[in-house]
Amino acid sequence: MNSRLKSAYLALKSRNLDALLVSSPANISYLTEATCRDAYLLVSPKKSIYFTDSRYTEEAKAFLKGKAVLCECNGLVFKRIAGEIHRLGLNRVGFEERHLPYAEFAKVKEYSAARFALIPTHSIIEDKRQVKDAQEIMKLRQAARITNLALGYIRRFIVPGAREIEIAGELERFIRYRGARCAAFDIIVATGPNSSQPHHLSGSRKLKKGEPVLIDLGVDYEGYKSDLTRVLFLGKINLLVRRVYDIVRKAQELAIKKIRPGVEIAEIDRVARDYIVSQGYGSNFTHNLGHGFGLEVHESPQISGREASSLKPGMVFTVEPGIYLPGKFGIRIEDMVLITTKGCEVISGAGD
Amino acid sequence: MNSRLKSAYLALKSRNLDALLVSSPANISYLTEATCRDAYLLVSPKKSIYFTDSRYTEEAKAFLKGKAVLCECNGLVFKRIAGEIHRLGLNRVGFEERHLPYAEFAKVKEYSAARFALIPTHSIIEDKRQVKDAQEIMKLRQAARITNLALGYIRRFIVPGAREIEIAGELERFIRYRGARCAAFDIIVATGPNSSQPHHLSGSRKLKKGEPVLIDLGVDYEGYKSDLTRVLFLGKINLLVRRVYDIVRKAQELAIKKIRPGVEIAEIDRVARDYIVSQGYGSNFTHNLGHGFGLEVHESPQISGREASSLKPGMVFTVEPGIYLPGKFGIRIEDMVLITTKGCEVISGAGD
Repeated sequence: MNSRLKSAYLALKSRNLDALLVSSPANISYLTEATCRDAYLLVSPKKSIYFTDSRYTEEAKAFLKGKAVLCECNGLVFKRIAGEIHRLGLNRVGFEERHLPYAEFAKVKEYSAARFALIPTHSIIEDKRQVKDAQEIMKLRQAARITNLALGYIRRFIVPGAREIEIAGELERFIRYRGARCAAFDIIVATGPNSSQPHHLSGSRKLKKGEPVLIDLGVDYEGYKSDLTRVLFLGKINLLVRRVYDIVRKAQELAIKKIRPGVEIAEIDRVARDYIVSQGYGSNFTHNLGHGFGLEVHESPQISGREASSLKPGMVFTVEPGIYLPGKFGIRIEDMVLITTKGCEVISGAGD
Repeated sequence: MNSRLKSAYLALKSRNLDALLVSSPANISYLTEATCRDAYLLVSPKKSIYFTDSRYTEEAKAFLKGKAVLCECNGLVFKRIAGEIHRLGLNRVGFEERHLPYAEFAKVKEYSAARFALIPTHSIIEDKRQVKDAQEIMKLRQAARITNLALGYIRRFIVPGAREIEIAGELERFIRYRGARCAAFDIIVATGPNSSQPHHLSGSRKLKKGEPVLIDLGVDYEGYKSDLTRVLFLGKINLLVRRVYDIVRKAQELAIKKIRPGVEIAEIDRVARDYIVSQGYGSNFTHNLGHGFGLEVHESPQISGREASSLKPGMVFTVEPGIYLPGKFGIRIEDMVLITTKGCEVISGAGD
């Protein structure tokens, strides 16, 4: 049993639950300290059980040692889960309502034959993941470092005629030579007018002189993700692009200055948003200021104007104001910050 | 309204449903003929509505024309969905039980205020996706072609000391220069003993002389996926590896020979499995023989010994027998077949 599982047991106790059926791969990965997929983890104080199929038996045996017992299921996994819950004499079993499809809930419920109750829960494990420990921060720093190096390396490929997907391909190759396991999400390479779509799908468009290229890249380093956006320019920048770029940069600076433990999260979003509104582009900043990241590229906390909780040391999140002018261009600048005991550190800015 | 939406309406009618809330990104992509994410599609004979957030407004406006109306929701999407269902006077609304998390089901139900019923459904759209049309087959052929080219190209990187993730990085780069949007899944590059794990996570292990390298690669070409596995060898192969390779190859050949319209799917799995059992490796073939692919890399039909339905022209699926000797090595050979009117065509075998 590791400290993360112990901490999860305590959280269950305080909610009057006998067990938790964890189905989010990131939550399972957090609790077992491994990279998990196609699995379910039943967490209970008596015994934790890891359910997966034969494709993963060999690796699961290795990483589960001393944490949970392995139950190999090839088909009928929900029957097995319900059977084990019954066998352990558990009565009130929480499940992750955001991560369990309705059909899977219905199956476990059916197999429970009313011998135990299924209680919807959310955020039990996610809340614990918000504050990162030293080992996690080390991995996140390395993920940030590789991402930053990649955005330096890619400049040589920003030439007329380069296609978006080709630039993405060069990034995919580079990050792996620097030790990343893979990209954290579909790399966004948005040239010219495509940059006005915040989540553009990189395509076959060719880069032209005088255009901005927005690159949004994240990597996975030992399970931990990064998320960084830069806008590069090919040739001369026109005045409007420059003006918008400067507004976004300034909005980011103002927000980062505010970041320290104890500050309300909504306030961070507000500072950046107020400045962009004051410059006349409020309606073009169409998303939240940022989001936490870690085992997932988007996790708690959301850095939004509706988030009333406060910043704590060990939190990491993105600060990514953006201004999008449909059909013309978009500018987003995204960095990663770590909350320290006194303020914050921009972990993406180091360069190399 | 396109023919896919029309066909979906008919399927609803026959199930006595007034509408279907589609939440699977692949199903939404199929119905709208675009690459969708972070969206919900309400399909009803009166009107179809596409719910997404402002990050996607610009692209959604373009691809929805004549198919569905756009409803931009920034927060409270389930309230909006319930409101629109009520406004349209729909009473019996199906939802995709395998693709809707319990929490989202509960929210729509809460906002329904008992003015409409939510009916769990499954496979309504997935069943339609099993048989591919001419345009889909063209894209799948191109995805298969790029994958095949990549597995030819990569041979030059199969050298002593090459790391698994570096080989994956070269593949990621290459497929994009050939027009793929991205890889269809985490590329598996498993060297030496790592090949005994069917879903190995590519890591930093270095390739050594005399080892097998299992590469499982798929690409995304205009939304359509491929899935191909080859085992390459660096240097001399030992006798056991050769023997196992030959058994897997023969099992695949025997299965492919059986594939034609009207054959029971279970029979295809059985032919390959029986042969592997006869050679003494039955317990080492630990997964199904194959799976359908298309907008997703795994979709219906499953090519399993439990699948009683029959093959139809226009289906595409993988044939991928494997033998895994834990701690030693594994061999899997995977090809993609298309069911024709008289038999089948191996679309991954063409080479270039």
